[in-house]
Amino acid sequence: MDNRIDNVFRALFTLEDLREIHRKALPTGLDGAEEEQYREILGRLKRIVADIEQGRETKEITKIAGTIDIRTREENYINIQPIQAAGRLTLEARKAVIAYGDGYSTCDACRKPFRLDKISKPGIAEFHADLARFVNMDQARVVPGARRGFQAVTGTLVEKGDSVIVSALAHYTEFLAVENAGGIVKEVPLNGKNIVTAEAVAQKIEDVRQETGKLPVLIMIDHFDYQFANEHEISGIGKVAHQYDIPLLYNGAYTVGVMPVDGKKIGADFVVGSGHKSMASVAPSGVLAMTDEWAPSALRTTAMVGDLTKRKFGIKEVEMLGCTLMGGTLLSMMASFPAVKARTLTWGNEVKRSNYFIDRLLNISGSKVLSEYPRRHTLTKVDTTGSFDTIAKTHKRRGFYFSDELSSRGIAGEFAGATRTWKLNTYGLNDRQIRYLADVFTEIAEKYEIPVQK
Amino acid sequence: MDNRIDNVFRALFTLEDLREIHRKALPTGLDGAEEEQYREILGRLKRIVADIEQGRETKEITKIAGTIDIRTREENYINIQPIQAAGRLTLEARKAVIAYGDGYSTCDACRKPFRLDKISKPGIAEFHADLARFVNMDQARVVPGARRGFQAVTGTLVEKGDSVIVSALAHYTEFLAVENAGGIVKEVPLNGKNIVTAEAVAQKIEDVRQETGKLPVLIMIDHFDYQFANEHEISGIGKVAHQYDIPLLYNGAYTVGVMPVDGKKIGADFVVGSGHKSMASVAPSGVLAMTDEWAPSALRTTAMVGDLTKRKFGIKEVEMLGCTLMGGTLLSMMASFPAVKARTLTWGNEVKRSNYFIDRLLNISGSKVLSEYPRRHTLTKVDTTGSFDTIAKTHKRRGFYFSDELSSRGIAGEFAGATRTWKLNTYGLNDRQIRYLADVFTEIAEKYEIPVQK
Repeated sequence: MDNRIDNVFRALFTLEDLREIHRKALPTGLDGAEEEQYREILGRLKRIVADIEQGRETKEITKIAGTIDIRTREENYINIQPIQAAGRLTLEARKAVIAYGDGYSTCDACRKPFRLDKISKPGIAEFHADLARFVNMDQARVVPGARRGFQAVTGTLVEKGDSVIVSALAHYTEFLAVENAGGIVKEVPLNGKNIVTAEAVAQKIEDVRQETGKLPVLIMIDHFDYQFANEHEISGIGKVAHQYDIPLLYNGAYTVGVMPVDGKKIGADFVVGSGHKSMASVAPSGVLAMTDEWAPSALRTTAMVGDLTKRKFGIKEVEMLGCTLMGGTLLSMMASFPAVKARTLTWGNEVKRSNYFIDRLLNISGSKVLSEYPRRHTLTKVDTTGSFDTIAKTHKRRGFYFSDELSSRGIAGEFAGATRTWKLNTYGLNDRQIRYLADVFTEIAEKYEIPVQK
Repeated sequence: MDNRIDNVFRALFTLEDLREIHRKALPTGLDGAEEEQYREILGRLKRIVADIEQGRETKEITKIAGTIDIRTREENYINIQPIQAAGRLTLEARKAVIAYGDGYSTCDACRKPFRLDKISKPGIAEFHADLARFVNMDQARVVPGARRGFQAVTGTLVEKGDSVIVSALAHYTEFLAVENAGGIVKEVPLNGKNIVTAEAVAQKIEDVRQETGKLPVLIMIDHFDYQFANEHEISGIGKVAHQYDIPLLYNGAYTVGVMPVDGKKIGADFVVGSGHKSMASVAPSGVLAMTDEWAPSALRTTAMVGDLTKRKFGIKEVEMLGCTLMGGTLLSMMASFPAVKARTLTWGNEVKRSNYFIDRLLNISGSKVLSEYPRRHTLTKVDTTGSFDTIAKTHKRRGFYFSDELSSRGIAGEFAGATRTWKLNTYGLNDRQIRYLADVFTEIAEKYEIPVQK
């Protein structure tokens, strides 16, 4: 651990102490007592900066609100946690949450017609247009997480008892969004390689028609699923959806923000992405994009009229419940967006590094990869039953020995204690980090005399 | 404007630059090039700290991601914006978003049964219990804004065509939540003093029964409304709700987090609060609390079973769509919570200061207050048609002259250009700030020769 990291946090927090004085002061300036307090804090800050410079360890334990530990996982470790990798904030997003953390901080310049996606300062309106272009759809809205995007679509399209096609690897939030709207999920089986094929989707549609006498009202498919991060036949599924004239929701929780996504080319009616999963944003955040065809229904504005006052809130969108992300969540998305756009163009390198690591892991005798291979994604499910788990069987720390070994080498994010089947994500690691990560796995194997192929 | 404020932001951002180096480095430490870059940034930091110390103005324009202005409204101004006042972050919340901004940062120690409100490190489980106690209800969940709390309740209780009682001053999000569930709002008329009385609620219930042949399925009432922030007869309404056996949703968007709220004493079945409006939290955030009676329905867990895989996600709650707030939003709520709890106990002082300001405003000839008076809240609707608007009529800047005058004296948050009826919120201002604010209004009146009563 680098001694400087804790001190960087102390310095950040001390600057917040200074900022707090400005917040409590009069616009005319600080008074004598405040100036004195300011000098005292500034002195503390200078000592911390000197500590950083000297690499001096701090004895002070920094807690937030007296009880919450600071979180240094991203600074002190290489983090391979499966869902955290592509959600960690960019530098600019971290600056944005410092400046825009306050509750309704987006609303300084909210004017008629009083809707989030119309605000031009900061450039929220433009960001909405950019987002739609980014996934090549016509319209986009920010939502509190991908799941709230699913909910808006099922709330629009699904009536009680309707069938919705999902994958046999569908995320639980798809189940919940369908259930919430009163629908029933119908799962498409996987082929022998754990892939959802277009043919299987077509077959399932026929099965549902046969069974219920009605076509499904919606198809929700993950381009890459959360279990194996296998790539499913999304474009073929898009064609099938159109043949049956059933709307397709493209679940891009693991794609939008890390690789290029072209909704129209895929034939998607809706594209959903996750801000905190793949767009380097504060949770809960996400995007719901759609073609113009669906905007009148999925983005319908309120028709409710007060029976007594005759009030109408005409421009507010029912499924959005009005404004959705009003501060730090949205501004982190916006601040990360230039970097996020850029990084999708180098997705190939991310996949290359993912395969590099997996190949090195497979060199450790007994290790397997359960995801499709070669990898097309940075999230991978591996099976180390034949390698690292053989040690866990007799180790007094059981599977935790493996976590200990990783942790002591600065690796975090594996599922603590798991040495059989588990998931990891190498997204965002640079070349040095990925080599280091692979070396650590090799080193641990060698330490426990698990054969490693060179 | 204090020159130091921009430099405090520059210093914060420069520390994030340092932090970024740690994030890109190997766990074994920085290499030569990184150390050099580190030293360079540290040098820059020291120069900025010296600038702060000397009060030197910076010529550098700090932008986030190249396009987003830093926001210094809370540092450079006294902010009286009606919805921002009680949502501005506490010092501890600002530290929390620095440490927990990353997407899924709450999930480091997520273990079986894999649900947000069960995580004990950081203390999210305990926070949920605290939240329920805080509003004296049995169970609580965090939600992405009060509106998502309304939605969970209407989604549970309201079927197509059902009537829901709301106030003639109901917030638009209540309309949308009812509409989203297929219900119809039925507004309770106000009395001559713009108050929703218990008697009027009872009468409206009878009217609905007469008109539709059915009782309303839900009563949603704002303790203080968003228009006037008048206090409505919430306890009496609680009694009426129970007489008719209709569940009561207490909308505490303007109360939970600023004044003590006792849900059971009121007779509420549900208590909803807003994190970004009244609990000093990052948006979107909020709380939905309820009595044990309603947990089996409003917090029902999923019953959906995959038709093919037979998968079940048993513990996930349908209306919550699983986990709700996964990082900076939740941690800001948690970090602010001790201060938020404490501040509700001094609500009386906030109201006193609100009345002090309003009294001073009323001393300016022609000014009126449209909210109930004396004030019982810090949010107030005022009418300055007879005072400041008389100047706007002939001023070349029209109503904007007033914004200019306020802004040049360090006051922000009035509705730009509005000089007739408008809203302001004095929440969180200390004694000095409230006096200064009142002095500014007096000073502007005197400048334009509007008579002021001494």
